[in-house]
Amino acid sequence: MDTGLKGAFVSPNRRKVYVEGDPPGIRVPFTEIALSDSPGRWGPVPNESVRLYDTSGPGSDPEVGLPLLRRDWVFGREDVEEYDGRAVTPRDDGRAAARRLGRPSEDGTSGNGTDEARPAMMSGIDRRPLRAARSMGAARPAVTQLHYARRGEITAEMRFAALREGVAPELVRDEIASGRAILPANVNHPESEPMVIGQRFLVKVNANIGNSAVTSSVAEEVDKLQWATRWGADTVMDLSTGPDIHTTREWIIRNSPVPIGTVPIYQALEKTDGRPEELTWELYRETLIEQAEQGVDYFTVHAGVLLRYVPLTVARVTGIVSRGGSIMAAWCLAHHKENFLYTHFAEMCEIMASYDIAFSLGDGLRPGSVADANDEAQLAELRTLGEVTQVAWRHDVQVMIEGPGHVPLHKVAENVTLQQELCHQAPFYTLGPLTTDVAPGYDHITSAIGAAVIGMHGTAMLCYVTPKEHLGLPNRDDVRQGMIAYKIAAHAADLAKGHSGAQAWDDALSKARFEFRWEDQFNLSMDPDTAQGFHDETLPAAPAKTAHFCSMCGPKFCSMRISQDVRDYAQSKGLATDTAISQGMVEKASEFRQSGTEAYLRPDGLTGT
Amino acid sequence: MDTGLKGAFVSPNRRKVYVEGDPPGIRVPFTEIALSDSPGRWGPVPNESVRLYDTSGPGSDPEVGLPLLRRDWVFGREDVEEYDGRAVTPRDDGRAAARRLGRPSEDGTSGNGTDEARPAMMSGIDRRPLRAARSMGAARPAVTQLHYARRGEITAEMRFAALREGVAPELVRDEIASGRAILPANVNHPESEPMVIGQRFLVKVNANIGNSAVTSSVAEEVDKLQWATRWGADTVMDLSTGPDIHTTREWIIRNSPVPIGTVPIYQALEKTDGRPEELTWELYRETLIEQAEQGVDYFTVHAGVLLRYVPLTVARVTGIVSRGGSIMAAWCLAHHKENFLYTHFAEMCEIMASYDIAFSLGDGLRPGSVADANDEAQLAELRTLGEVTQVAWRHDVQVMIEGPGHVPLHKVAENVTLQQELCHQAPFYTLGPLTTDVAPGYDHITSAIGAAVIGMHGTAMLCYVTPKEHLGLPNRDDVRQGMIAYKIAAHAADLAKGHSGAQAWDDALSKARFEFRWEDQFNLSMDPDTAQGFHDETLPAAPAKTAHFCSMCGPKFCSMRISQDVRDYAQSKGLATDTAISQGMVEKASEFRQSGTEAYLRPDGLTGT
Repeated sequence: MDTGLKGAFVSPNRRKVYVEGDPPGIRVPFTEIALSDSPGRWGPVPNESVRLYDTSGPGSDPEVGLPLLRRDWVFGREDVEEYDGRAVTPRDDGRAAARRLGRPSEDGTSGNGTDEARPAMMSGIDRRPLRAARSMGAARPAVTQLHYARRGEITAEMRFAALREGVAPELVRDEIASGRAILPANVNHPESEPMVIGQRFLVKVNANIGNSAVTSSVAEEVDKLQWATRWGADTVMDLSTGPDIHTTREWIIRNSPVPIGTVPIYQALEKTDGRPEELTWELYRETLIEQAEQGVDYFTVHAGVLLRYVPLTVARVTGIVSRGGSIMAAWCLAHHKENFLYTHFAEMCEIMASYDIAFSLGDGLRPGSVADANDEAQLAELRTLGEVTQVAWRHDVQVMIEGPGHVPLHKVAENVTLQQELCHQAPFYTLGPLTTDVAPGYDHITSAIGAAVIGMHGTAMLCYVTPKEHLGLPNRDDVRQGMIAYKIAAHAADLAKGHSGAQAWDDALSKARFEFRWEDQFNLSMDPDTAQGFHDETLPAAPAKTAHFCSMCGPKFCSMRISQDVRDYAQSKGLATDTAISQGMVEKASEFRQSGTEAYLRPDGLTGT
Repeated sequence: MDTGLKGAFVSPNRRKVYVEGDPPGIRVPFTEIALSDSPGRWGPVPNESVRLYDTSGPGSDPEVGLPLLRRDWVFGREDVEEYDGRAVTPRDDGRAAARRLGRPSEDGTSGNGTDEARPAMMSGIDRRPLRAARSMGAARPAVTQLHYARRGEITAEMRFAALREGVAPELVRDEIASGRAILPANVNHPESEPMVIGQRFLVKVNANIGNSAVTSSVAEEVDKLQWATRWGADTVMDLSTGPDIHTTREWIIRNSPVPIGTVPIYQALEKTDGRPEELTWELYRETLIEQAEQGVDYFTVHAGVLLRYVPLTVARVTGIVSRGGSIMAAWCLAHHKENFLYTHFAEMCEIMASYDIAFSLGDGLRPGSVADANDEAQLAELRTLGEVTQVAWRHDVQVMIEGPGHVPLHKVAENVTLQQELCHQAPFYTLGPLTTDVAPGYDHITSAIGAAVIGMHGTAMLCYVTPKEHLGLPNRDDVRQGMIAYKIAAHAADLAKGHSGAQAWDDALSKARFEFRWEDQFNLSMDPDTAQGFHDETLPAAPAKTAHFCSMCGPKFCSMRISQDVRDYAQSKGLATDTAISQGMVEKASEFRQSGTEAYLRPDGLTGT
C-alpha cells in the first residue's frame, strides 16, 4: 500500500488557487481542477473547472511558522492589548522536562534557555500574547466572534469562512449569533485560515494527533499536522500527554492553518505527575492561560462529569472510557466534591472570552460500547452540558458539544435529536460513532458508517477514527486512512443534506468516468494517487488513460458506450420526449445492425452485473 | 499491509465446531471462541464461549471438491431423476477455447478429452445431473424450497439454515413460503451448506469473483472463492467472461460451500463472440441448462430492461452502467424488439423450477452515479421486476431483486420502501450502494456506509464492493478488504435490526476489552490477525497482551480502571440503587486518597478525549 505523497497529487490540472473576497485583503484558498473537453457531435465541448474546499494551508518551514494572516484583522478591531505573558517554565513541558533540568516540578522559574536536549523554540514565541483590552478599568470585554456576531458585525473571519463555504456572509454571522455555529479563532493564533462549524455548513472533520509518554518527536507531530491538513483535516486536536508537551504545542500552532483544539486537563495532569487527586482549579486555570497565550482555538472541558453521575456508570459494559472523564471522576471520588470544571465554569468563561477560545464540551461519560449507547449516564451529562452551554453564551463564549463514541445505527438519529434539544442547537461534534464493537483494526470503517449517518442528521463536525483505534497509536498511513474515511463520511452527509455545490463534485467525476476522461477522474478523486495507482496496476500504459475502455471489460465490450450512443442519437434528431425517442429507436435499430454493435459497447463497474 | 492467512486465525481458542441438529444428520458449522475468565472479587469468573456464523466450509482439495452434504436430502425427497446431461462442448469455454481446438464455435460436439492446454476436468463432472422427475407423463413438478415451504414442509435445508441463524425452522419455512426469503439450493450443487436470505434473518454478503478476458487462471478463481468464504462470503457470484468459462465455473461449484450465482448472459455473449445482436433465446436457454446442470444456485436475469425504458436513460449523467443491462439494451435496439428475457420469462421459470435455481432479478438500469439515483428509468424497471416476480412465484421459483448501485444517503430508505412495495416483499439484494462518487480507490468505504444503512432498512443481502471498483480487477487483498467492510456493514445492520444474538458478540468483545483480556479481544475480532498485528506494532512483548494497560496511555494512567473500581466497590457493599451508591462514595473518597488513585486508573481509546 502506498503511503507517501507523490508529486502527482498536485498536477498541472490540480492546483491551489486563491479567490479574492471582499474586502480585497481576503484571499481564500481552493483546490482547482481544470477539466479536459467532453467529446461532442460538433467538436469538443469544454467543461467548467471544479473548485474544492482546501485546508492544506500555504505551507511553512516548521522552524519559521506560517504567515500571520489574521493579525491585521485582530488589531483592526482595536479591542486587544499586547502584554507580558506568563513565563514559560520547565514544568510546562511535563515532569520529564522538569526532572531533566534538575529542578523540582514545583519550581516555577524559566530555565530552558541553554537546555540542549530540548527542541529549539519557535522564533514566533518571542511574540507577546494578546488578550482583550480593558476599557477604562471596566471588565475585559469579550473579543469573540460570537460577541461580534451578536452586535450584527460581519468580521473578516466570517467573510473568509463564507467565501470558503459558498454562502452569504450574513448566514455565517447569523448562525454564529444564534449559537448554532462557531468560528474558532484565538487572537493568538493569527496563522489560522478561518472556518465555520455548524449544521448549515459543510460537515467538518477533526484529526487527533499528539505524542504520548513513549512515542513521537516534536518534528513528527508537526509532520502529522501537515499531513492531516493535506488530507482535509478542518481542525486538529493536539492530545499530547508525553514529554515536551508545551513545546510540541507551540510548534503545532505556529504551523497550523487550521484551528487547534486541546484537552487542558491532560497537561494539568502532567504537572501533578499523573495524580488526579492533586489537581486543583488554580493549577488548571494556570494551564488554561498558558495554552490561551499560545493560541489554542478550542478547549475540551469535561464540565458535565458530575459527582452524582459517576455511579450511573456502574452497571455499564464499559464504564467510563473517556480519559478526561475518568480523570474528573477520579478527582470527584477522591475528594467527594463536585467537579471543579463545573463549579468554576463562569470563571473559565471569562478567560476564554478574553482570547476567543471556544468550548468543546467533553462527553466524559460517553458510551464505550454499543451496549452503553444513549444510557442514563450519557444523557444526564448531556443535560448538564446544555446547562453550561447557556452559561458560556451569557459570556459571549462560543460552544460546541462533543458526542459519542459507540452507537448502533438505529440510535444515531435519536442521539442528535437529544443533543440538539438539550443543548439548545449548539453544534454537535462527534467521535465516530462506531456502529459495532467487533472490528478492531477497521474502526475507521465501523465509525465512518456512523459518522456519515450522524452527519446527515445534523452533526457539524466529525472526529476521525483511525484503523489503530483501541489498539495503538496511529502512524502516518493510519492518519491518512482515517482522514479519507472521514472525508468520505462528511461528503456523503453533505450530499444527503443537499449542501449547495456538494453534488457538483460528484457529477463532474461521474461525467468524466462516463466519458472515459481518466485523467479528469483521477484529478477529481479524493485521493488521486491511489485511484491512478489502482488503475495502472491493470492497465499501466499511458495510452490506456485516454482509451475509451477500462480493465473491467477490456477494449471490446463496454456498457457505457451504448448510453452515449442512445443519447447522441436523440440529440442529433432533436428528440425531446420519451415517446419521440422511442419512435426514433426503429431507425436506430437498423443503424445498429448495419454498423455492428461491437463498436458501440463499453464497460461498466467491475462488481456489478 | 498483511495479505496472508496466518495460523493465528485459527487458534486453540478460536476454532470450527459443529452443532448437531434435528434430524441428527444435520451438523451445522460455527466458529467457536473460548474465552478466558474475568477477574472477580472472589476469584475468576468464567465467560461463556461465543459462537459465530461460519461460511468457510469444511475445506477441500480443489481437484476433488467438497463432500456431497445435501445429496441424501435431495434423493430422500424422491422427486428428482438422474439423466444424461447436455454434452459439454468447446464453445462452452468461450470462443478462445473453441478456436484453440481448431473448431468453429458453431461446432456443438465435445472434443476436449485430450486437450492439454485445458485445465483438468473435475472428477465430479462424471456425475450425471439431476432434475425434477416427471410423474406419470405430467409436467415436471417444481423441486424448489418454495414449493416445499408452500406445502408446509420443513426440509433438511431449512432446518440447517434455521440452526445457523438461531431461529425456529418454522420461521424459515414461513418466510420462504411467503416469498420474503429464499434458500438457494440447486439440486446439482449438493456441496453447499444451506443458508437463507431474507429480511428476518442475518444480513448476508455476496462476493463477486471471476476471470476476465486477460486475467486469472482457474486455480486462482478457486483460491479467491475459498478466500472469500473464509472472510465470511455468504454467497459467491462467478462473473467470469474470459477463457475457460465453463471449466472455471465447474471448479468453483465443486469447491463451494456457499450458493453460487452467475449472470448467464455473460456466457451467452461469449458464445456469440461478443455480438449482442446475435443473441437468441435458444442460445440463452441452452446456456441456462448448461449452468443448471453444473449446479448454479441463482441466476441474475435482466428481464426488466424493456425496450421502452431505454430512452429513459438518455438524460442521465451515467446512462446505463450495468453490463447485463447494456447487453439487453443493445439487443433490444438492434432488433427493435422486446427483451427476450421478458418475453420468455415463463419458460425460464419452468427450467429453474426443475433444478431449484432462484432468480436474482437484475437491475439493468440501476444508477451509476448519485445524480441518477431513484430516477424514472430505475423505477420503471423495478415495477417490471415486481410483475415478473409474481410470474416466478406462480411457478414456485424463488426470487430476489437486485438493487443499486449509487444512492445518496437520504434516498436509501426510500429505495427499500419502493422495492418492498413494488416487488411484493421479495428479498432485496443491493450492490452497495455507494453514497458518493468522488472516492475511487475507497469505494469499499463509500459503499459500506450505504450498505449498512440499506441493510438496516431491510435489505437482505449486500453485494460487496472492493477498493478496485471502477478502476480494475480485485486481487486477493482487495477481496479481503471488500469482505471485511461488508461484514461490518452487515453486522451494523443486524445490530440496528435487533437480530437476536448480534449484540452478544459486541458485548463479549467490549467486556474483554474493558477487562484487558487482549487474547479474547483478538479472537473475537472480525480479523484477529490484523487486530493483534496493530497492537503488537506498539507493544510487541507477549506480557503486554496480558497486561492491564495498552499503548494509548501506557501503564500509568488508565481510564477504564476507575469504572471497575467504582463497580467493585458498589458490589462489595451490596449497593443497588444510585442513591445508595452515591452515599457510599463518601467512604470511597477516603479509600481513594489512602491508596493513591494511580493504582486505579487505566486507558481509554486513543482518539477520544
